[in-house]
Amino acid sequence: MRVRKRKGAEEHLESNPHYVILNPEDSKGHWHEVFGNDNPIHIEVGSGKGGFITGMALKHPEINYIGIDIQLSVLSYALDKVLDSKAPNVKLLRVDGSSLTNYFEDGEVDMMYLNFSDPWPKSKHEKRRLTYKDFLDTYKKILPEHGEIHFKTDNRGLFEYSLASFSQYGMTLKRVWLDLHASDYQDNVMTEYEAKFSSKGQVIYRLEAHF
Amino acid sequence: MRVRKRKGAEEHLESNPHYVILNPEDSKGHWHEVFGNDNPIHIEVGSGKGGFITGMALKHPEINYIGIDIQLSVLSYALDKVLDSKAPNVKLLRVDGSSLTNYFEDGEVDMMYLNFSDPWPKSKHEKRRLTYKDFLDTYKKILPEHGEIHFKTDNRGLFEYSLASFSQYGMTLKRVWLDLHASDYQDNVMTEYEAKFSSKGQVIYRLEAHF
Repeated sequence: MRVRKRKGAEEHLESNPHYVILNPEDSKGHWHEVFGNDNPIHIEVGSGKGGFITGMALKHPEINYIGIDIQLSVLSYALDKVLDSKAPNVKLLRVDGSSLTNYFEDGEVDMMYLNFSDPWPKSKHEKRRLTYKDFLDTYKKILPEHGEIHFKTDNRGLFEYSLASFSQYGMTLKRVWLDLHASDYQDNVMTEYEAKFSSKGQVIYRLEAHF
Repeated sequence: MRVRKRKGAEEHLESNPHYVILNPEDSKGHWHEVFGNDNPIHIEVGSGKGGFITGMALKHPEINYIGIDIQLSVLSYALDKVLDSKAPNVKLLRVDGSSLTNYFEDGEVDMMYLNFSDPWPKSKHEKRRLTYKDFLDTYKKILPEHGEIHFKTDNRGLFEYSLASFSQYGMTLKRVWLDLHASDYQDNVMTEYEAKFSSKGQVIYRLEAHF
């Protein structure tokens, strides 16, 4: 997700250390202490404006959520949402999806979400897609054995690519939705992007896969 | 594919033994002799009115094709197409998809196609879907190691189901198309059903998977 640069975004993030973990490498292996409980930890890589992670945190107080995004301004908007929600079970990290093993021990993350990731449609940019095999290597390390990834997108090319990428990596598809909003799936929490584009008639794809 | 009963269908099939193999169990292990060459053998399970198998046979004279359908009237229409085409590299079988091991030796079929199979949308009919695991057991036996299945459908529910079914069986998705006719795929041969429904704006899904 690209947004315009927001003035004061960095200061905003730095002044809310309860929600924005500024030196996340120090928390590697200690995330249950950070949250102050032993609840499962779910992360969203590419959490954008935070609508999903905040909505999930409010809906599932028994789970700890970490929203991860590398973009300063985007993360500052997510922080607004988290502050509004007052949810005690959500944290934000400004780190890169490829560096997750610096911040999480092997198996420390119980499951993860990828929502509306940048499609990087050109073949030469395949390695930047968050469902490229090198990213799957990283996710596999921080998830438990048979750990799950739940992925949704409106981008047909990225979804086609990701189905094949997950499968060729040896992951198993648990379930696939080719028009999520026309299905009987009840537990959907929409992202900001999803609400906007599905209202324009865009089909939303979703899958659940495990290692 | 369901069509109205055609008068004289049985006699039509029986009077063309060069194209319609009437006692296919006798050909088990001898299909290269039936075709009179050592070319690869590709089968279509549920060949309907025969547009696909005939089109493929004309396009690929270096491959032997066998169209399989259990329905008498449907197969008789496929025979019309084959007779018109005069293709020497296509045969038709009136047998059931679940009984293929009666007619083909282990590994005797080089690859197979499933096109617009009956979706059987009710859960209680899952076992009838041609991508259900018991059918995959059969296909695996008659195909070589890592043998491929190419599948297309316009039925969203069946495609969602089949992606998960193939994956959970341990098959690997080579490639997936979520709107075949909007893609750059060049080698498509349309079935009668596909031509009709895609002209009405129906999305066509396709996948290539291997064991």
